[in-house]
Amino acid sequence: MLRGLTRAGLGQIESDEQFIELAAKYGFQAVDLDALSLVEAHTVAGARELLEKNGLVVGSIGLPVEWRTTEEAFREGLPKLAQAAEAAAALGCTSCCTYVLPSTDFGAAHFMALATRRLRTCAQILGAYGIRLGLEFVGPHHLRTRWQNPFIWTIDETLDWIDAIGEPGVGLLFDSYHWYTNGGTVADIEKLRVDQIVHVHINDAPDVPVADVLDNGRLYPGEGVIDLAGFLQGLHRIGYTGAVAQEILTATPPTDSPESLVERSKAGFDKVYAAAEI
Amino acid sequence: MLRGLTRAGLGQIESDEQFIELAAKYGFQAVDLDALSLVEAHTVAGARELLEKNGLVVGSIGLPVEWRTTEEAFREGLPKLAQAAEAAAALGCTSCCTYVLPSTDFGAAHFMALATRRLRTCAQILGAYGIRLGLEFVGPHHLRTRWQNPFIWTIDETLDWIDAIGEPGVGLLFDSYHWYTNGGTVADIEKLRVDQIVHVHINDAPDVPVADVLDNGRLYPGEGVIDLAGFLQGLHRIGYTGAVAQEILTATPPTDSPESLVERSKAGFDKVYAAAEI
Amino acid sequence: MLRGLTRAGLGQIESDEQFIELAAKYGFQAVDLDALSLVEAHTVAGARELLEKNGLVVGSIGLPVEWRTTEEAFREGLPKLAQAAEAAAALGCTSCCTYVLPSTDFGAAHFMALATRRLRTCAQILGAYGIRLGLEFVGPHHLRTRWQNPFIWTIDETLDWIDAIGEPGVGLLFDSYHWYTNGGTVADIEKLRVDQIVHVHINDAPDVPVADVLDNGRLYPGEGVIDLAGFLQGLHRIGYTGAVAQEILTATPPTDSPESLVERSKAGFDKVYAAAEI
Amino acid sequence: MLRGLTRAGLGQIESDEQFIELAAKYGFQAVDLDALSLVEAHTVAGARELLEKNGLVVGSIGLPVEWRTTEEAFREGLPKLAQAAEAAAALGCTSCCTYVLPSTDFGAAHFMALATRRLRTCAQILGAYGIRLGLEFVGPHHLRTRWQNPFIWTIDETLDWIDAIGEPGVGLLFDSYHWYTNGGTVADIEKLRVDQIVHVHINDAPDVPVADVLDNGRLYPGEGVIDLAGFLQGLHRIGYTGAVAQEILTATPPTDSPESLVERSKAGFDKVYAAAEI
Repeated sequence: MLRGLTRAGLGQIESDEQFIELAAKYGFQAVDLDALSLVEAHTVAGARELLEKNGLVVGSIGLPVEWRTTEEAFREGLPKLAQAAEAAAALGCTSCCTYVLPSTDFGAAHFMALATRRLRTCAQILGAYGIRLGLEFVGPHHLRTRWQNPFIWTIDETLDWIDAIGEPGVGLLFDSYHWYTNGGTVADIEKLRVDQIVHVHINDAPDVPVADVLDNGRLYPGEGVIDLAGFLQGLHRIGYTGAVAQEILTATPPTDSPESLVERSKAGFDKVYAAAEI
Repeated sequence: MLRGLTRAGLGQIESDEQFIELAAKYGFQAVDLDALSLVEAHTVAGARELLEKNGLVVGSIGLPVEWRTTEEAFREGLPKLAQAAEAAAALGCTSCCTYVLPSTDFGAAHFMALATRRLRTCAQILGAYGIRLGLEFVGPHHLRTRWQNPFIWTIDETLDWIDAIGEPGVGLLFDSYHWYTNGGTVADIEKLRVDQIVHVHINDAPDVPVADVLDNGRLYPGEGVIDLAGFLQGLHRIGYTGAVAQEILTATPPTDSPESLVERSKAGFDKVYAAAEI
Repeated sequence: MLRGLTRAGLGQIESDEQFIELAAKYGFQAVDLDALSLVEAHTVAGARELLEKNGLVVGSIGLPVEWRTTEEAFREGLPKLAQAAEAAAALGCTSCCTYVLPSTDFGAAHFMALATRRLRTCAQILGAYGIRLGLEFVGPHHLRTRWQNPFIWTIDETLDWIDAIGEPGVGLLFDSYHWYTNGGTVADIEKLRVDQIVHVHINDAPDVPVADVLDNGRLYPGEGVIDLAGFLQGLHRIGYTGAVAQEILTATPPTDSPESLVERSKAGFDKVYAAAEI
Repeated sequence: MLRGLTRAGLGQIESDEQFIELAAKYGFQAVDLDALSLVEAHTVAGARELLEKNGLVVGSIGLPVEWRTTEEAFREGLPKLAQAAEAAAALGCTSCCTYVLPSTDFGAAHFMALATRRLRTCAQILGAYGIRLGLEFVGPHHLRTRWQNPFIWTIDETLDWIDAIGEPGVGLLFDSYHWYTNGGTVADIEKLRVDQIVHVHINDAPDVPVADVLDNGRLYPGEGVIDLAGFLQGLHRIGYTGAVAQEILTATPPTDSPESLVERSKAGFDKVYAAAEI
């Protein structure tokens, strides 16, 4: 499993180039970034070279489509999605992800119908480029009532939704934080087929009651109470070999230098990978 | 548009044979019944002959699959569905319908995901036999809060759901009663494409506030306050030529003889078809 | 049914503006053109105004995707397709068409598999904008052996292919020329459901044996031997109300002025519409 | 990877019970059989017990649908398919397979369209029960011209077809014999994702030119010239852990006793598994 980084939790990173270099310097193997921007800045050949010389792959891109509001906003994003998919594919990336909020101000059933159709269209466009769509279930309890109507937040509900979308190549973005806040076990991971997992996030949580864990209260791997060794072992056991990317969302941005934050991240990965013995 | 009957509202009909003969005697052109039973009782050739000599077609069959509860119950119905589809196709019927309750005790979003996948499977099996799946939105206000969570009940929501199901040949069962209880207008009908309509029900409502109309408080066509002339004209204008079947659900079953009830139904159809001038 | 024009057969038309004005001047109601170009030249509002003041709608756009060669070429067209669909939808156009050559130098079965998947992706993107995809079967006999392996060219084969594509909103571009060269009858038209027809072309053929009719040997409607009155009546009878566009492909371009060619086209439409009594 | 058997090559096996007992006795872990028959003979509970006490799983069932001829024959099989899927699922089997002949007397493109739609329907019904559909490409050269028109026979063509079918859960039945007769390499296996493989067959070939290998000239594993160690290693490397079933098709049935043939099969498996060091 590749050690991966997102920019979240790394402070004031100034550019993709800086992000890539720091990731490489501290032994990371995957970066989640905007492939289209990178290609536009460097050309496909240049972007490939930049990644290769730093020993990195693109773990996943974000879904550049607004599927949560109006039909107009949704449609507007589709040309961009095709371009983003083309750029990602050119860089060898096969994963694109989006998160799913656990409550909504829309009617829950109607919004589920709309979102099913919209995400299917996204999956179809991505699929034309060999890219899979990962859906991130979001577990923190406070978000389940943050908006008017409950939506979905569990692994099983999300798998059922993936079946409803019904397109090959749709799977989970599996984040340790949401697994933890759902009360997930290692056995829950081992029940999955590896092709159900499109991407993985790894984050840690503070030692507070699970129901009080805040979405933007995340800790670096190894600095909290989540059984990340078990998490990694479970993924390893079912055959997952892709990227495991940290995404540290916090209430206020960290003020340390990006380099020291990447170094701290490395220490976290070292600790939990060692504990997992993988 | 074919004048159609279901058994609902016709009292103690004793058999398909009686139903067919009464329908024919009073000038009806379509009957909604269980095609598989008819074929099992008469063979395909016999069932065809029975319908033909009475000048009737099968308007629609009911969906013989439990898609609203457990996965086990759902799966159990699929072999039966394939058989029912084959029987219906053998009789020239191209429509199969199910109703959608406007509230649910399940989580609304999760149930929408499950129902989307299940009804897609049903549509796929039906589609193999050239049969379309009609979804009946259900408008009466009391049912919207009958179960714990609101589901969907409007035309637009149902059309959005049909898009989410995403299978060719899924459309609306359009019932004047649910159109009325949704506050629908003739213009709402005229916005539809004819291929969005799989089947039509025609029923009338008593002169009470719309919010108080009960699902099982239906009147025979022409005996209530719904603008059924406008309803039929709207359908005619968009090119609908299929069956328009009465389905009189009442709190207590009518006690008149089936024949007098069919005769009364004929009078209702005569009245509203004449008013519609079609 | 709307009288429609493509530019094919109208000589040296210099611009969309000229095309639109001539079409309007001679009583046409629909033009097939590149909606994205029109929107880029005039803005959406400007393009709408231009069409409206000339009493025209866009009948159909062409599919701007190369689905017949390499995967790279195919993928390259998808961002453009989303943009074209957005432009077409903004102008109220709901149809996008492509033709299907009746033979191929690729292995026929493998190419069918590739083309099925690629056109499904196109239909999915178009569907996100409410636009249907029309497939034009191509009948002239000489093209059936023009390339190494026979592909498909009949109505029934194309309908079977549409089922294989399996996406809502895929249908036929029905061209009188290909219907004629397939030996089609009015009864063949009347067997279709109107939702199976996405767009219509009308062209006439010279008085030569059907097997000798050349794809680029087309005549203006009413100047040849095809039963265009029957063709139009058949379409009318099944409820088709969309555009019927002329597309005169000839071995050498006509040298008359565009205006005289549009005038000649009008005379042809007058003749065949009168004969059809619609 | 589970050692598996089909009945092909085992002589006059008299019953499922005998088949199961012999398989168990010689250390096999999976049997390919008709789950529905087994369930009908033993009930679900009885069939489960029979398998469990013999330490066996069902590797795969055959597709009980005629998708290669008429539409009537195809439809006729669908109720049976749903029943077979239910039986297989009840026994924990998640795989159903069919073979694809490399030539056809139908028009190749048209047949590909029909077969795409029919196999999609099969995959959809199977999918409702959590069962995947495996397509077996068939490599022997003589079959490529056995019928009038070439169809498809390579791994890549079959993967393209699977994309055209477009349903989650459709993949390859990967048979060493067809891999060999296609000139396949271990690298070709390693390019696959494990979720693209639904089931595996293992057979050996005589020492004749590849172009002369006959479909019904198969040898027991380890008795011929195919690099079955490399074959198994490739599958192991991509993470395949399912059944690997022998299917010895011969011009004349073997005359040895079933027990001696199963014993011989065991010796073959011992040899190639040992060579593969897995």
